Amino acid sequence: MEEIFSQSENLNSMVLTPWMLSDLELIGIGGFAPLTGFMGSADWQAVVEDMHLATGEPWPIPITLPVAKQQALQLHEGERVALRGEDGQVYGILTVQEVFQPDLRYEAARVYRTTEDKHPGVARLYARPPYCLAGPIHLLRQRPALFPKFNFTPAQTKEEFANRGWRTVVGFQTRNPVHRAHEYIQKSALETVDGLLLHPLVGETKLDDIPAAIRMESYQVLLKHYYPASRVMLATYPAAMRYAGPREAVLHALVRRNYGCTHFVVGRDHAGVGNYYGPYDAQDIFSNFAPGELGIQPMFYENSFYCERCDGMASEKTCPHASQYRHILSGTKVREMLSQGIRPSSKFTRPEVADVLMAGLAEQGVSELPTK
Amino acid sequence: MEEIFSQSENLNSMVLTPWMLSDLELIGIGGFAPLTGFMGSADWQAVVEDMHLATGEPWPIPITLPVAKQQALQLHEGERVALRGEDGQVYGILTVQEVFQPDLRYEAARVYRTTEDKHPGVARLYARPPYCLAGPIHLLRQRPALFPKFNFTPAQTKEEFANRGWRTVVGFQTRNPVHRAHEYIQKSALETVDGLLLHPLVGETKLDDIPAAIRMESYQVLLKHYYPASRVMLATYPAAMRYAGPREAVLHALVRRNYGCTHFVVGRDHAGVGNYYGPYDAQDIFSNFAPGELGIQPMFYENSFYCERCDGMASEKTCPHASQYRHILSGTKVREMLSQGIRPSSKFTRPEVADVLMAGLAEQGVSELPTK
Repeated sequence: MEEIFSQSENLNSMVLTPWMLSDLELIGIGGFAPLTGFMGSADWQAVVEDMHLATGEPWPIPITLPVAKQQALQLHEGERVALRGEDGQVYGILTVQEVFQPDLRYEAARVYRTTEDKHPGVARLYARPPYCLAGPIHLLRQRPALFPKFNFTPAQTKEEFANRGWRTVVGFQTRNPVHRAHEYIQKSALETVDGLLLHPLVGETKLDDIPAAIRMESYQVLLKHYYPASRVMLATYPAAMRYAGPREAVLHALVRRNYGCTHFVVGRDHAGVGNYYGPYDAQDIFSNFAPGELGIQPMFYENSFYCERCDGMASEKTCPHASQYRHILSGTKVREMLSQGIRPSSKFTRPEVADVLMAGLAEQGVSELPTK
Repeated sequence: MEEIFSQSENLNSMVLTPWMLSDLELIGIGGFAPLTGFMGSADWQAVVEDMHLATGEPWPIPITLPVAKQQALQLHEGERVALRGEDGQVYGILTVQEVFQPDLRYEAARVYRTTEDKHPGVARLYARPPYCLAGPIHLLRQRPALFPKFNFTPAQTKEEFANRGWRTVVGFQTRNPVHRAHEYIQKSALETVDGLLLHPLVGETKLDDIPAAIRMESYQVLLKHYYPASRVMLATYPAAMRYAGPREAVLHALVRRNYGCTHFVVGRDHAGVGNYYGPYDAQDIFSNFAPGELGIQPMFYENSFYCERCDGMASEKTCPHASQYRHILSGTKVREMLSQGIRPSSKFTRPEVADVLMAGLAEQGVSELPTK
């Protein structure tokens, strides 16, 4: 390792955005297995076209390293390039296999199902430099963990699951606070497996998502008061959101497989944004894969709510009662309430969670009021 | 069919108990597929020893036709025997392949995990005539359905599932009323599949189980008030209980596969009796089968309860709170209450269900008070 570090001083180097750094890190720690580097044109093509790598393994979204034209032209095959952060530090080494120019509109159309740059994922795709640098990577260091106590590599979560004797584990992806609707889905899934990995994404999200630090505090207070410690594990997922809806749901599932999960919750409009995807697109997409192909079992859920006649949580699938009995708030509405210091009903948000969110959002200031 | 009926007048015939008739019927309608007749010695041996038929397909419990010694001695291979009910009617024809004498103590030890005749399943096994008549059967008629509206063959449930557009269906076996604990488990499972088959066993049970007619009424009132009609189907399972615990859980799963289910709920001490089986034996036994071998996915559940702190239903796996917050009643206790006209808390039994059970048990009379 020492040798690589010192050599890297003499290498050509390029600076990665935080998003690219998180991809580098996920490749390096095995979160993106079977990927061992940034994709070349053959994988890009196969992935964009039919959600498989050139080798035939399932993979839904290109993981590529954008590079500016003038830099791309200076590089040659076999050369080793130092991958630096914006802080100047070297985080990894890439051995150049290929430089190629992907058709970004085609990628947008296939992966995001839209070429509109109003879509935040598409906008970011279009904003990237036009070339991609491909080749295997060697991860030299990780960024300091935002939440060190909850920082686990795939090897570490697997070890933890084994230590706890969990043979079946359901993974739950979230970039939002966990209100009772999501608690219910998590617990419904947990009832039939050994453990739950609550795995919030803490990388880059939309500006209007609730900041990770506030969310992490709210998850901890929720678990403390409402989950048996022996059945749930909280760990951070250091990725950026792509908002690619159905395809990202598959990515989220594959990554959780790599973290050791056997099951993965896919809700309505999973990883969606705006009205770009139908409510069940992110569930239906899984039928494109052969049984067992993904190595993880998706569990599909509906939106849920508290129903007074049911005297508990339920969904359209399990509750026959009229809407007047159901406690339903939109995400926008509840964030507005929390920002104004109004605690939602305990049927919607656990009071302990509401307190944390209200305090966090108050600190953040009303000027940054999250909106849909 | 006409021809077989008239011919059967001249055949040797034997009289079947209601239990044997229900086995005949289940073989004939495909509920016991791949069985096409009563088992011979090779299948008996393979099933008793390691839960597979001689052909290698999974099967946990011998399905054999007991016959008295003097009758066994009169029969010869290839002969066709009329299978009559106690009413004298011919229900089916068996073509004799073999007469054999199973080692019933060995069967008891392997299948029931006990040779004690205090075990109701073992007691019935020991009470049977010592020989078995084996061979393919032809079902001529079914007994009049006890509950015609809910009488569906496997072909009919599959057709109904297809009509409803259900691709995934969880089967729920019960021989008891559905209190909220079981409603919660059913709905937890239903949240992640398309439909629920509530499939109560209405064949022979222990004398102290609640009569099927009362149970059927209670299921209907429960579904009417608390389940979306589009997501649940009530049908009867015309089998007898064997109380073979773990092995019977596998049988229950295989049979529900034949009825078209993709998933099957296995609770704690499923199909158990007394203290003969450990609470998780009926779940652990499924690890003896290769993934996909059974053709149906077992879903394992804990006992559940209403918890005031959770403000809803939960189990040890999902609720961290102290027992003082949990509403738990033993089956014995709740039946005692119902028999005395005392309605259990609505946190334990839906009031509409309690009313039906109280009325039914009152009619039945206190003298037949069910006990554990």
